Amino acid sequence: MSTPDLTQLRIPAEALRQFALSAFLKAGVEAAVAEETARALWLTSLRGVDSHGMRLLPHYIASIEGGRLNPKPNFTFEQTAASTGRLNADHGLGHAASMQAMRHAIQLAKDAGVGFVSVYNSSHCGALATYALEACEHDMLGMAYTHATARMRTPNGSRAFLGTNPICFAAPMVDEEPFCFDSAPTPFSFNKVRQYREQGLQLPPDVAADKDGHMTQDPHVADQLLPIGDYKGFGLSLMVDILCGLLSGMPVGRDISDMTGDPLSEKRYLGHFFGAIRIDAFEDVSTFKTRMQKLARDLRAEQPLDPNVPMQVAGDPEKTIQQERIANGIPLYATELETLNALGQRLGIGVLA
Amino acid sequence: MSTPDLTQLRIPAEALRQFALSAFLKAGVEAAVAEETARALWLTSLRGVDSHGMRLLPHYIASIEGGRLNPKPNFTFEQTAASTGRLNADHGLGHAASMQAMRHAIQLAKDAGVGFVSVYNSSHCGALATYALEACEHDMLGMAYTHATARMRTPNGSRAFLGTNPICFAAPMVDEEPFCFDSAPTPFSFNKVRQYREQGLQLPPDVAADKDGHMTQDPHVADQLLPIGDYKGFGLSLMVDILCGLLSGMPVGRDISDMTGDPLSEKRYLGHFFGAIRIDAFEDVSTFKTRMQKLARDLRAEQPLDPNVPMQVAGDPEKTIQQERIANGIPLYATELETLNALGQRLGIGVLA
Repeated sequence: MSTPDLTQLRIPAEALRQFALSAFLKAGVEAAVAEETARALWLTSLRGVDSHGMRLLPHYIASIEGGRLNPKPNFTFEQTAASTGRLNADHGLGHAASMQAMRHAIQLAKDAGVGFVSVYNSSHCGALATYALEACEHDMLGMAYTHATARMRTPNGSRAFLGTNPICFAAPMVDEEPFCFDSAPTPFSFNKVRQYREQGLQLPPDVAADKDGHMTQDPHVADQLLPIGDYKGFGLSLMVDILCGLLSGMPVGRDISDMTGDPLSEKRYLGHFFGAIRIDAFEDVSTFKTRMQKLARDLRAEQPLDPNVPMQVAGDPEKTIQQERIANGIPLYATELETLNALGQRLGIGVLA
Repeated sequence: MSTPDLTQLRIPAEALRQFALSAFLKAGVEAAVAEETARALWLTSLRGVDSHGMRLLPHYIASIEGGRLNPKPNFTFEQTAASTGRLNADHGLGHAASMQAMRHAIQLAKDAGVGFVSVYNSSHCGALATYALEACEHDMLGMAYTHATARMRTPNGSRAFLGTNPICFAAPMVDEEPFCFDSAPTPFSFNKVRQYREQGLQLPPDVAADKDGHMTQDPHVADQLLPIGDYKGFGLSLMVDILCGLLSGMPVGRDISDMTGDPLSEKRYLGHFFGAIRIDAFEDVSTFKTRMQKLARDLRAEQPLDPNVPMQVAGDPEKTIQQERIANGIPLYATELETLNALGQRLGIGVLA
């Protein structure tokens, strides 16, 4: 989501993609992995999901230099049945491993109707939409799940146990980019809490708790995130940890390492789960895509409560931002640009602007 | 969930199951369908999900007598790929069609690793847990989805568009009944709103809206339910309608008929979606079930904020109620018992108590 006080520094999306690619290559990342990851960051920033886009490039480079990430991973895929397989990410960049896993899921689905692939020995994979959307290119439904650092307070619990484990689901439409729902089971992300801190705003009720688990509206003492719908969001998060941690043989809950807190030399051992469902195994593809389009249009045509707020379905804000950013470039805070330029100078790949 | 002022009238679960079976048979329902549906209602009432259990028996009998439900459906299954298939429910009882669909999904998964089955021409299928739990009997993960009558207000919308479309996910554990998350994407069900009416209580904020879409805490003017996490619960509900309505070729959104409002002569044309995922296609079954058990135990051992409230995972309340009801029978309101007994007398199958 876009942040409220973005500066007007705009960098063309393609320049940022090239910059990320050069940075990965200079850091010794294997070419195909570098290209896949640069593309994932580019698409994520284009779609306005800045928390998971180019902003994280310095973190990934530091993780490669620190030894957490393997720059030349040997991704190995093992098909375990007609519609299933496991991918060993070999501690490489999670983006490249995830895209490869989804491509395997798509291939399995071509033959078997659906394909599900578990990823293990992985790391942060960025925004799930990147992978779920890939399935739609093949007239399939895309499903993607990943677990994350414990950050969500358990109902009636005093501390975080599960991560803000997201669910992503994408479905193609006939006349526009796919429907794409990509959502964590908390009303707020911790990035959004930090924005409230910076802007001196009070949090809404029921979004955060302090370090002892008590609900707070003070962003400075907020330490944990509350789930949507209390035990319901908690159950969704647990479902994702079962799919991503237990099924892959990776750690779960509080045993998952901290993305930024642990030494950047330590491997993360994350797991993900990707699925592709061939539409024509159930319904005529053209009928499905036409009806999906109509469903989105019907929802957007509903009478709004506040006529100044547009009626939207999941993915609409990202589509609007993507069009605007293709035209005008990706906005960066001055401090973000400085950080990226310092990285560029240190790696000897030049600066952005 | 149990209701606060249940009378102490207790009927043995087995007697209720036999009663339901006799009622279906007297109404002309084919034996296998009658047995499957009676079992689904029995299990659902045993688990404490009274809104979807024996309470609905008179509705189903009336739907058979009215012509909405086909008492002797010809369920036909078409396998469309190694891991996929479609089941035509032929407007029979949704419970029997759903269990048959899940059994096909399990069979597909045995061969292909996972199995997904779409159901069309169906009707109300009760609680999804019944079907998801079946997969766990075969060391598989169970997934179940169904759409429902429009009852949930769209974010910024003025009226209901989507149903309280539930998601169910079940995973086996080594030492106890499976983990089972079965949840609608709204904080309240409409049944719970009705309970607040009867008890003269005010609703919490952000659970319901009036007929024009404005948030209300008055249960008497509440007409629509709000989603959990605003656009997040809405997105989940839309995902379920895509899986259940679009993939099956059935109606979606406001085109879905009203369970109780429409004439009981009109067929409902509902769709469902069931999945089974073979654990051993990804992980050693024993390791998975042992780790799943530990995960549940670790969560229950977390320090509670309120020491008088137990720490629970999804499915724990149902397990507690099930043990108690196996021992003491299923509690029924006096009015519910009267209704069931009147049905029994009319059908000539006797009374419960």
